[in-house]
Amino acid sequence: MQIKEILSLSPSNQSLVIKGWVRTKRVSANVAFIALNDGSTIHNIQGVVSDGAVSEETLKLVTTGACIAMTGTLIPSQGQGQSVELQVNSIEVYGTADPEKYPLQPKKHSLEFLREIAHLRPRTNTFSAILRVRHALAYAVHTYFNQNQFFYLHTPIITGSDAEGAGEMFRVTTLPATNPPLTEDGKVDFKEDFFGKETNLTVSGQLEGELGAMALSKVYTFGPTFRAENSNTTRHLAEFWMIEPEVAFNELEDNMNLAEDFTKFCIKYALEHCADDIAFLEKRLLDEEKTKKKEEQSELSLTEKLRFVTENDFERITYTEAINILLQSKTHKQGKFQYPVEWGIDLQSEHERWLVEKHFKKPVILTNYPKDIKAFYMKLDEDGKTVRAMDVLFPGIGEIIGGSQREDDYEKLLQRTKEVGIEEESIWWYLETRKFGSAPHAGFGLGFERLVLFVTGMSNIRDVIPFPRTPKTAEF
Amino acid sequence: MQIKEILSLSPSNQSLVIKGWVRTKRVSANVAFIALNDGSTIHNIQGVVSDGAVSEETLKLVTTGACIAMTGTLIPSQGQGQSVELQVNSIEVYGTADPEKYPLQPKKHSLEFLREIAHLRPRTNTFSAILRVRHALAYAVHTYFNQNQFFYLHTPIITGSDAEGAGEMFRVTTLPATNPPLTEDGKVDFKEDFFGKETNLTVSGQLEGELGAMALSKVYTFGPTFRAENSNTTRHLAEFWMIEPEVAFNELEDNMNLAEDFTKFCIKYALEHCADDIAFLEKRLLDEEKTKKKEEQSELSLTEKLRFVTENDFERITYTEAINILLQSKTHKQGKFQYPVEWGIDLQSEHERWLVEKHFKKPVILTNYPKDIKAFYMKLDEDGKTVRAMDVLFPGIGEIIGGSQREDDYEKLLQRTKEVGIEEESIWWYLETRKFGSAPHAGFGLGFERLVLFVTGMSNIRDVIPFPRTPKTAEF
Repeated sequence: MQIKEILSLSPSNQSLVIKGWVRTKRVSANVAFIALNDGSTIHNIQGVVSDGAVSEETLKLVTTGACIAMTGTLIPSQGQGQSVELQVNSIEVYGTADPEKYPLQPKKHSLEFLREIAHLRPRTNTFSAILRVRHALAYAVHTYFNQNQFFYLHTPIITGSDAEGAGEMFRVTTLPATNPPLTEDGKVDFKEDFFGKETNLTVSGQLEGELGAMALSKVYTFGPTFRAENSNTTRHLAEFWMIEPEVAFNELEDNMNLAEDFTKFCIKYALEHCADDIAFLEKRLLDEEKTKKKEEQSELSLTEKLRFVTENDFERITYTEAINILLQSKTHKQGKFQYPVEWGIDLQSEHERWLVEKHFKKPVILTNYPKDIKAFYMKLDEDGKTVRAMDVLFPGIGEIIGGSQREDDYEKLLQRTKEVGIEEESIWWYLETRKFGSAPHAGFGLGFERLVLFVTGMSNIRDVIPFPRTPKTAEF
Repeated sequence: MQIKEILSLSPSNQSLVIKGWVRTKRVSANVAFIALNDGSTIHNIQGVVSDGAVSEETLKLVTTGACIAMTGTLIPSQGQGQSVELQVNSIEVYGTADPEKYPLQPKKHSLEFLREIAHLRPRTNTFSAILRVRHALAYAVHTYFNQNQFFYLHTPIITGSDAEGAGEMFRVTTLPATNPPLTEDGKVDFKEDFFGKETNLTVSGQLEGELGAMALSKVYTFGPTFRAENSNTTRHLAEFWMIEPEVAFNELEDNMNLAEDFTKFCIKYALEHCADDIAFLEKRLLDEEKTKKKEEQSELSLTEKLRFVTENDFERITYTEAINILLQSKTHKQGKFQYPVEWGIDLQSEHERWLVEKHFKKPVILTNYPKDIKAFYMKLDEDGKTVRAMDVLFPGIGEIIGGSQREDDYEKLLQRTKEVGIEEESIWWYLETRKFGSAPHAGFGLGFERLVLFVTGMSNIRDVIPFPRTPKTAEF
């Protein structure tokens, strides 16, 4: 039985074996108190070892990080903050943790230090809480789509197409690094490579998702995607997980409804199923905020920020309306935005957050962006200048979702691929879906780590994925 | 509303718009019958267009593959095989499908041909059924683990470690293919590569899964894995999805219990939630079997094979016992096995299937294999010759799961890594979990496509993943 379940039992001297890792041991008079955790919950169970119940020799091995099994009887707890504790009769030590060498001693460790020992950090309160929330959110994603008749589509990770245009790509190869086979003109001969051509890691499953939607109507992807950008920021990973629903017969408004309903469902699910972990993370965030300057502190607590999303209707306005609102704002007129504002720009995070946090005070969906700052596959508006794009903006984080209605007209799509320089033969299969039984359809992408970041209140994306991949870092 | 839901309605002349792709159109006297499918179910809905209800011009565009919306009233069906049909008032054509060019005309297509048009094959009955079953199985996986308090762990796809030893790897790089930077001794300088060292695509998430289990107790992975093996067989993919649970405090027997319970749950889930699709696939398989020679035909129908797993207790015997049974079999004595049988061999599929299908007539779990044919991380048995490995064998397919209790003793594990030639510094983090708070633990790997293959009754693994990656093939 796991500690989460044991903590909910009524104590009646039942005999139990409890296994886990020692968080702390405290010796007081003739009694030792052991806080044991098995990762099933943020809470520890207290083991009480009376004098003589366990040999000195064994008790000496019970140090922070050691793995043990405690056998005993479950009794009402005398201490505060817990209803039950284990009166320990015997202890089996599975694995020790030499206090001189074990890096996770019971004191505050910096997040930077913990990244260097990512193989051990899930044993801390903060990271076990994050990983449980991450699990709950992933399960919420699958639950939501399954309940709504979507089919999970595994789109390919290795792709021979470089048409997605969402960013720099990693090459995948089995050719020898030194002295690869060459063509007559001295270039590497990718015909000799594993797939008979140059291949890369996918930056998005959307194009293949659309193929699925043109047959199954409602599909979603949830898989790893990759960007080979040399960005050392708190918001970029070279490898991250993306969720991309795609729905036949959906137009832009349906797409907005789906995005709003979906994100609210996931966040409500986490609030409901991870109350203890979110309470812990909220307290952690409060402590962190206290170290910041007053003006940099968040006005909302973590749960307030989550309810800000679940309890508000998302404001829906066009990009053009948003630009006008920004231009007329005091902040702009007083020159307090760092970046300029004018029609045609790609909005910066400061603009997005101002709209959400200061102006509307609710999540915002911006639509109908200028076509020149959006991808080739987005459906052109009647004016020929804007496309049926949508970005969903959240407090603290800015853009969390990007999506659009897709161009379903073969000629217009072909024209756009030419304009942006994509070769027809590299996406003949994508174009063909507009040739045969084309349908209006729409979808969006949500970077899963962005969602986990938002729900956990963490500030560095490297702390919400188990083993982050970033420039010059691929340890573990 | 989707066709699956509409087909379950009581017809009462309700007004409906039904959207989907035309499977067939049949004109009889003054009436046209349109079979429409939207991928939500294997079943089509029939649209009945009386003379004059829709213009000739429009009706001409309603050909196989076209995407349309039919508006009309839902009435009891006159025809066989369906309870409702739509009396059509009007048709909107979203996208045509020129019968001269659209490859999916209503006739039998070979699976080989359909692989070449994998962007369109989800529009066939067979592939839409497979993809729905695949979705249901994936959802069953997440449901099972969530219900049993496992946490979903996203282990890294790009790995800097080559210690997994499960197979040939793909290199991941951003160095220029031609003229990459070189070190002084003329080799490619991977310090200049994106991650500052040579990196590959993962062949297994197990090692990182173990890190998670040593903190959260019960974790599972479900993600893509890669093998750069030049195998052009019906059972190998270069990119496939793998499920790997890992559980602290589990020993070999717990691991067997988990594997049996888990696979039964998934297959029962599919039988319950995909009855129509499995019935269709069973019929497809029967037709395929009829084209085979008598002795190559399967004795069991598809659902019989699935119930063979769900309704039998798995037989559990050691590798050594299995070898003895094989040696004493008539099949062996009459020289009818293609491959030799002796202690120490890696069992062939023919041996595994004989044990399952002929001898025990139930799924079999073989345990305690010779250490020399198993991975370095498996726990050594007391005899020093065998390890606590387990393989789960299914009818028709042989091995579907491979797993083990893991070596949790630091010194023994270190010894094994040296024996197999893994450098200590490349997996220092893995070894450290045995140094600090080590615990008994066990886990296994299930190739998801093997499971989908088994449940759909398909015979080529390229037909149970949307866009297969195999040697010289990375289209779409």
